[in-house]
Amino acid sequence: MRMGVFAGRIGIIGAGALGCFYGARLARAGANVHFLMRSDYEVVRAQGLMVYSRDGDFLIEPPVFPDAETMGPCDLVIVGLKTTDNGHLARLLAPTVHKHTIVLTLQNGLGNEETIAAAIAKNLGISPGAAASQVVGGVAFLCSHRPERGVVCHTDHGWVRMAELDGPSRQRTHDIAELFRTAGIDCQVFESLKLIRWEKLVWNIPFNGMGVAAGHAHTAAILADDMLLATARGLMQEVVDAAAGDGVALAPDIVERMINNTRTMGDYRSSMQIDFEAGRPLEVEAILGEPVRRALAANVSVPRMQMLYGAVRRLDALKRLIQV
Amino acid sequence: MRMGVFAGRIGIIGAGALGCFYGARLARAGANVHFLMRSDYEVVRAQGLMVYSRDGDFLIEPPVFPDAETMGPCDLVIVGLKTTDNGHLARLLAPTVHKHTIVLTLQNGLGNEETIAAAIAKNLGISPGAAASQVVGGVAFLCSHRPERGVVCHTDHGWVRMAELDGPSRQRTHDIAELFRTAGIDCQVFESLKLIRWEKLVWNIPFNGMGVAAGHAHTAAILADDMLLATARGLMQEVVDAAAGDGVALAPDIVERMINNTRTMGDYRSSMQIDFEAGRPLEVEAILGEPVRRALAANVSVPRMQMLYGAVRRLDALKRLIQV
Repeated sequence: MRMGVFAGRIGIIGAGALGCFYGARLARAGANVHFLMRSDYEVVRAQGLMVYSRDGDFLIEPPVFPDAETMGPCDLVIVGLKTTDNGHLARLLAPTVHKHTIVLTLQNGLGNEETIAAAIAKNLGISPGAAASQVVGGVAFLCSHRPERGVVCHTDHGWVRMAELDGPSRQRTHDIAELFRTAGIDCQVFESLKLIRWEKLVWNIPFNGMGVAAGHAHTAAILADDMLLATARGLMQEVVDAAAGDGVALAPDIVERMINNTRTMGDYRSSMQIDFEAGRPLEVEAILGEPVRRALAANVSVPRMQMLYGAVRRLDALKRLIQV
Repeated sequence: MRMGVFAGRIGIIGAGALGCFYGARLARAGANVHFLMRSDYEVVRAQGLMVYSRDGDFLIEPPVFPDAETMGPCDLVIVGLKTTDNGHLARLLAPTVHKHTIVLTLQNGLGNEETIAAAIAKNLGISPGAAASQVVGGVAFLCSHRPERGVVCHTDHGWVRMAELDGPSRQRTHDIAELFRTAGIDCQVFESLKLIRWEKLVWNIPFNGMGVAAGHAHTAAILADDMLLATARGLMQEVVDAAAGDGVALAPDIVERMINNTRTMGDYRSSMQIDFEAGRPLEVEAILGEPVRRALAANVSVPRMQMLYGAVRRLDALKRLIQV
C-alpha cells in the first residue's frame, strides 16, 4: 500500500463551525483549501478566519467564494453542511465535483453518503456504482461553535473516523486521513461505514433526542433522573439492535461504556438541543428518522426511538411553523 | 339488596370544574350539598354557582365554606381535588370525615384511594382496613372547565363508574350511585376498582402524556402522525400489560376500540395538555408515575411509559422552577 498525503484542490461546502474548523486546520498545515461561504463571506474575505482552539489559536486568510460556481471544480470536497440543508447538495456539488473528485461528508446521522452519491450520479450522468465510489463518509467527534461571523471556537475533541460508502478502504482515503493527521487531527480509516455511523448514533440518538423532547434535558439531567437514564440505556440498546438489523455488530459493552464516558465528560448540551433552544431547524431525519426507517425495514423493534422521532419531528415542525 | 338513594350531608372538597359540576347536579336534585371553596368562595356566596351544560343551564345557591373546619363533619365527602394538591388531603379530611363518613374520590389516576385511606386511618386513629372500608373510588368521564369564578361549563359526557377500594361493592355505594342517577348522571357500580382505574389509563396515559411531551400533540395530531399513532398504540398495550401485572385483565380489543373512539370524538386537548399550556402543575404522579411504579414492581416492561413519565416529570418541574 502506497503511503501518501492527499494533494489537490480542496473545497469546503457547508462552512459552519465544523467545516471551518477542519478546513482551517488543513489550510494551516499547507493544504490548498477553498471555502464556500454564505453569511460569513464578507467578514472572512476582509479579516480572515479566526480559530480559537484548545490546541492553539490561529488566523488564516483562505480563498473564499460566495457560490459554488465561482469556487469551481475540486479534487476533494468536504461537506460540513447541516443535514437540514441537504436539499441544496445537488446544486452545490454540480460545479465542484467532476469524475475524479472525492466527496467526504462529515455530516451527522444516516443517509448523507447515499444522498451525495445520488446527486453525483445525476449531475455527472454516471452509474450509481461509479458515483458511490467517489464518496467517503466521515464521523467527526468535535465540540465547536461559531460565536460570530468569521470566528470558530474549538472547545474539545476533534477526532475523525472515515470509511468508504461502497466497501473496503481505498488508498485515496488513507491519503486523506494522512492529510488530516498532518494537520494534527487524530484520524483513522475504518472498513465499515455502517459501523462508525451506527456507533456514533448509540450516543447521538438518546442525548440529542431527549435534549429536545425530555424538557431541555442536558446530559447531567438525563444521568441524574432514574426514568431518563433507564430510557437512555434502552434507546442505546435499540440502536445496537437496529445496527445488528443493518448487518453491523457493535461491541456488547458499548452501552455501559457510553454511559460511563458521558458521566466523565461533564455537563453537556447536544447539538440538537442547542439548535432547538436557538430556534434553528433540527437534524431530525438524519439522526432519528433514517435510523428508525432502517430499523423498521429490518423488522427490528425500536419503540423508544419511534416515540422520540415522532416527538422531535413534531417539535421541530412547530418551531418552524411559529417562525414562518 | 336494598335499593335506596343516599341521604345525608354531602361535602365537596376540591371544587374545580369537576367537583362543582357533580356537586351542583346533586344539589339541584335535592341533595344536601356543601362546597368547600378557595378562590371561588366570595363569588359563589354572593352570586351562586352557575352551570352552563349541554344538559341544560342552571344556577344554584348552595352553602359554601372557606375552610374544612367551618364545613364540618359530612356523611359523604366527594373529593375533586387535583392530585397535585393531595398533600393537603389529610388536613382537609380531618374536620370533615368521621367514623361513618364515606369518601368518594373522583380524581384522576392511581393511588388516590390509598392516600385517602391512609389519611383517614391517621386522622381517626383506626386500622388501615377500617379506613379502607370508608373509601370509594370513582372514575369520571367528563369534559368541563371553569371559565371564570363561580361558573362551570359542561361540554360533554359526564358518566361515572364507582368501585370500593377494598373489595366487592357494598349497598351504600349502590345508594350513592342511585343518588347520582337521580341527578341525571349515568353512574354504574363495578366490582373492581383496579379495572375501572386501569381502563381509563389506557386512554389517559398516551393522550395526556404525549399532549405534553410530543410537542403539544392534541388527539388529531397524534392520530395523523404515523410515529405518534404507533406510539399511542404501544403505550396502550403497555397499560394493558401493566394492568395484567396488577391482576386486572382488560378486554383484548380495548386498544383498537379506544383508537377508534378517539377518531370519532373530534380534535381534543387532554387535561394535562391544557394544564401544561396554562402553566399549571401537571397530574404527573397519578397519571404516569404511579402506573409506572406498579408496572416495574410487577416486572412488567413499560419502556414507552417510562420515557413519557421521565419527560413529563421534567417538563412539569421546569415549568414550576420558572414560575418560582
